[in-house]
Amino acid sequence: MKKFVLAPDSFKESMSAKEVCQAMEAGILNVFPDAQITHVPMADGGEGTTDSLVDATNGRKEFLEVNGPLPNQKVNAYYGILGDQKTAIIEMAQASGIMLVEPSQRNPLITTTFGTGQLIKAALDQGVKKILIGIGGSATVDGGMGMAQALGAKFYDENNQLLDGNGGNLAAINRIDVSELDPRLDDTEVIIASDVQNILTGKDGAAAVFGPQKGASQKDVVTLDNGLQHFAALISRDLGQDVANIPGSGAAGGLGAGLLAFTKAKLQPGVEVVANAVDLASKVADADFVFTGEGGMDFQTKFGKTPFGVAQVAKAAGKPVFAEAGYLGDRIEELYEIGITAVFGIVDKAQSIEESLKAGPANVKRTTENIARLIKATQK
Amino acid sequence: MKKFVLAPDSFKESMSAKEVCQAMEAGILNVFPDAQITHVPMADGGEGTTDSLVDATNGRKEFLEVNGPLPNQKVNAYYGILGDQKTAIIEMAQASGIMLVEPSQRNPLITTTFGTGQLIKAALDQGVKKILIGIGGSATVDGGMGMAQALGAKFYDENNQLLDGNGGNLAAINRIDVSELDPRLDDTEVIIASDVQNILTGKDGAAAVFGPQKGASQKDVVTLDNGLQHFAALISRDLGQDVANIPGSGAAGGLGAGLLAFTKAKLQPGVEVVANAVDLASKVADADFVFTGEGGMDFQTKFGKTPFGVAQVAKAAGKPVFAEAGYLGDRIEELYEIGITAVFGIVDKAQSIEESLKAGPANVKRTTENIARLIKATQK
Repeated sequence: MKKFVLAPDSFKESMSAKEVCQAMEAGILNVFPDAQITHVPMADGGEGTTDSLVDATNGRKEFLEVNGPLPNQKVNAYYGILGDQKTAIIEMAQASGIMLVEPSQRNPLITTTFGTGQLIKAALDQGVKKILIGIGGSATVDGGMGMAQALGAKFYDENNQLLDGNGGNLAAINRIDVSELDPRLDDTEVIIASDVQNILTGKDGAAAVFGPQKGASQKDVVTLDNGLQHFAALISRDLGQDVANIPGSGAAGGLGAGLLAFTKAKLQPGVEVVANAVDLASKVADADFVFTGEGGMDFQTKFGKTPFGVAQVAKAAGKPVFAEAGYLGDRIEELYEIGITAVFGIVDKAQSIEESLKAGPANVKRTTENIARLIKATQK
Repeated sequence: MKKFVLAPDSFKESMSAKEVCQAMEAGILNVFPDAQITHVPMADGGEGTTDSLVDATNGRKEFLEVNGPLPNQKVNAYYGILGDQKTAIIEMAQASGIMLVEPSQRNPLITTTFGTGQLIKAALDQGVKKILIGIGGSATVDGGMGMAQALGAKFYDENNQLLDGNGGNLAAINRIDVSELDPRLDDTEVIIASDVQNILTGKDGAAAVFGPQKGASQKDVVTLDNGLQHFAALISRDLGQDVANIPGSGAAGGLGAGLLAFTKAKLQPGVEVVANAVDLASKVADADFVFTGEGGMDFQTKFGKTPFGVAQVAKAAGKPVFAEAGYLGDRIEELYEIGITAVFGIVDKAQSIEESLKAGPANVKRTTENIARLIKATQK
């Protein structure tokens, strides 16, 4: 009896990771009817990470209304509680993401991570001891000031007036008061799932590198960078922490720095966070074959995408790992070196992107079935 | 050391079968650098058969000018002499094909297979003892009258005047004289590569089924069908042969019947003709793995296309056969039953047909390399 572990990411705009697993399973069962198949819907810390982790661990989603990135904006968001009931998974983009703001409204001087703080607070209310945070796709450059505010930190200006957390207010902070910061954060492990290595400020910082795509003008970038520098200095002075030069502190408009400063956070590559949360290594250790995949793959997959993470785990265990993708881009052969045994495109013919997205499940099933048929035929 | 046989058809408008073999080899050598790889460019009797057989046997092409399908039309054509120097391969469409006639000029009352007869004569001049004829894509419904004329047969009307061979003259034939028919035909084996099972006349006949797509009106179809009936009756009377009800006699506008009547011809499925000519069976018997493929594959592949023929040979020898295609159509799973071990699409992303055709060699190489990687990883 053959044992398969199915550990794909979602195929964006086509299938969730769970649906990819289902399509793969259907293909395998046509060839190995008695196969033992383990579904491990994966993600890399980006969009879809909550869904995959909830699906992979039989967890649940919690829905709530929180503040959006803009002042007075409310958004419906959700976070996940994993099957262990002790771990939450939060995607900051659910509350503070760039996709929640119309392009014409994007302005990191006024956007806030407050809603992300509300999600953290809601997770704490569920009694979790560990919070995983995916921080891709932010609309903000507030250094996590809004997030900290939502969790009880207070930011005063020189007139001792409370400041709201946003990028434009960073430079006005005179004093940080954490006396009312949520005490549960002391006992809560926070893992920031991030592959971004940028530090907080300067030419490789959160404002300079990511500000423009969030709506910042060149002048705004200078304002935001100065604000973040000032914020880091106050964190150092008032909290005794130096976070500005930690690689990753510049992620998500400096939310990385804020989480490092105001919570017991550690940074970890996204796919590792997910692989650990779903216990991928022990599942792979028991498998004969591993399948992975993602909507698109190219040489950049090796910079921390899901198939890379799965390949690392499989390679360590000496298991073959087969990848599938709807889009195969440049220099796919560089993935062989990082442990991908073989990679196959699933597209069945020249067609439009829309047709290709719609045909995803049938194409994954067919491709997986044929990989399985090949395995069966060549196994001695 | 692994042994591979590469036996693809051409990928129409993208790669010749020879070029597919080269792309496949490049992929395999990246994985098995010391592999023993045998190129067997294949075909199914249709377009590209001459090229593939010449490539597969290290033969040569002979170029010449012959009559085209229309009166007074001259066309440049070629046929092949296989590496054994004793076998010729002719595609009737080279001289008498529908693609040689502008759509507005298509008229099977006046088109002729005379040029095909000239190709046969030219091949006989080379001293061959066997002629393979691919008869797809004809512009004619002349029952092979033109072909026979070019080889010395004479057709007289009731006034004892010589008739030119074309569909419109069939009904006017009063007597057939084969006294000056090329005597070398007596010692020459002719194999008609055809998967068409139609008989010569009637509702499933050459005129009714194929006439309209060659430009015949409904009235023309009646004229042509009557002409073919008359022709068959005279063949029976003057040549002592009953060819009208042999399945395949209706192929290529009745060229099937004409070849059966005027030469020592046998009908054989196209891909079998090719497989025999290239000695595919003995090459496959010595291989570990067989690769095949075609530009497009779907359930109809099992009705005599190249991957079907290759799969039959491989199945008989108990060898796995992997197929690749640029277009995977409906019910591809029906190919598993006929011996295709696994089939993979080569297209790497949603794209236009033009892009897909252009990317053919790179896509075949990549797909083959990954099949080879999978083989290597799963072989115990």
